[in-house]
Amino acid sequence: MIEARPGAPLYYMVKENIEALIRSGKYMPSDQLPTESQLGDQYTVSRTTVRLALQQLEMEGLIHRIQGKGTFISSPKIEDELTDHVKSFVEQMKDLGLQTHSTVLSVELIPATSHLAAVLHIADKDPVIKLARLRHADNEPLQHSTSYVPWRLAPELMQDDLTCSLFELLSNKYKLIPHRATESIEPIVIDDTYSSLLNIAEGSPAFLIESITYSENQVPLEYAHLIVRGDRLKFVIDRAFR
Amino acid sequence: MIEARPGAPLYYMVKENIEALIRSGKYMPSDQLPTESQLGDQYTVSRTTVRLALQQLEMEGLIHRIQGKGTFISSPKIEDELTDHVKSFVEQMKDLGLQTHSTVLSVELIPATSHLAAVLHIADKDPVIKLARLRHADNEPLQHSTSYVPWRLAPELMQDDLTCSLFELLSNKYKLIPHRATESIEPIVIDDTYSSLLNIAEGSPAFLIESITYSENQVPLEYAHLIVRGDRLKFVIDRAFR
Repeated sequence: MIEARPGAPLYYMVKENIEALIRSGKYMPSDQLPTESQLGDQYTVSRTTVRLALQQLEMEGLIHRIQGKGTFISSPKIEDELTDHVKSFVEQMKDLGLQTHSTVLSVELIPATSHLAAVLHIADKDPVIKLARLRHADNEPLQHSTSYVPWRLAPELMQDDLTCSLFELLSNKYKLIPHRATESIEPIVIDDTYSSLLNIAEGSPAFLIESITYSENQVPLEYAHLIVRGDRLKFVIDRAFR
Repeated sequence: MIEARPGAPLYYMVKENIEALIRSGKYMPSDQLPTESQLGDQYTVSRTTVRLALQQLEMEGLIHRIQGKGTFISSPKIEDELTDHVKSFVEQMKDLGLQTHSTVLSVELIPATSHLAAVLHIADKDPVIKLARLRHADNEPLQHSTSYVPWRLAPELMQDDLTCSLFELLSNKYKLIPHRATESIEPIVIDDTYSSLLNIAEGSPAFLIESITYSENQVPLEYAHLIVRGDRLKFVIDRAFR
């Protein structure tokens, strides 16, 4: 039974209690939680109260449900540090001690749409290489990336080994050295296409990241559109006040 | 009618075409899009194809549906720059030229849970002030914030005017100067509680931001739990490669 506290809704106290058990390591990643009715008995609250508490925990990514199986403790997320410096996906995963590999889903030559022409500083309908890849961390799909590279910059790219780092390829073979990138980070809800590719439930939260990478002389080398699993990654940043 | 392109799904080309009209300003924020069947006629594609294109545009936050009314062009998001320096919400909105105000939803004294005790460097069950506020930008609710401040640091806080900047109050009255903050950024899906508070549909994407703010001598001053509307805000960052 949990201690009542004036002003605090009961479900919130159940949520806090389960959260404490997860954070203290009493419950470990992939452990199964008791059923709603078992938790109801344990805390002497209604199943509705338990359900509200579990909804909050699920929303915050601490637990997840597997249909027909039950509720499980989620793994802690990969922490992607938003420092001053940007690294390639491959370097980043290496620094985190994670094994990584990429699968090429498609590579095609397309005419630049007006949006691509604007971000890549090329003319409308200029040829652009569109590369869709699935990137894995420790054998689990982590992000779906679509890279757009002006064809004139790297005319043989479609024949290159695209399972490796695109930036390494651009640097080493084409002498196009990434110098800086502007990125935007937005939250999205996964639709059925990305759900099957990333192996997460439709309706799950994810990041949509768009980035433009420039060379030292301000030539856009790549425009990228990334969908990153929200249950596996979070951004962290450490900042000073003025 | 749209030009077919080998390898590109039809819905994707419809999506790109509508996206270009939005980005070029042909469609403006809060403009209504034609109906699915009108768009189908316009592009000579099926309604299923139109629906897939609209789903993608909605997922990327460019359009939104209002039940019983139709589909509308969304306003461009507020761009929150992730620079080296952190600012209070009030300063940040001011810099963006947005009017802001806060509504206090609740303020209460609670005993620290083990999680709060750990992040605030206090003992379990030590008194903590829990302040829930709704923060508006240009009269629209933008974020729900829950601040936790150790009661011993600011014993009169519950009697202070909490509609203003908490950091200004801590600085000016209690001589507790925020020095640095660590933040984490995660995507979440809005549940019914936050849906009504933030005036967005259940199932919409949002950010969950957790921050711990420290004084110069490393005393945790505040732990904050923020839910920020994903349809109104995105983070942007400009970074250099090593």
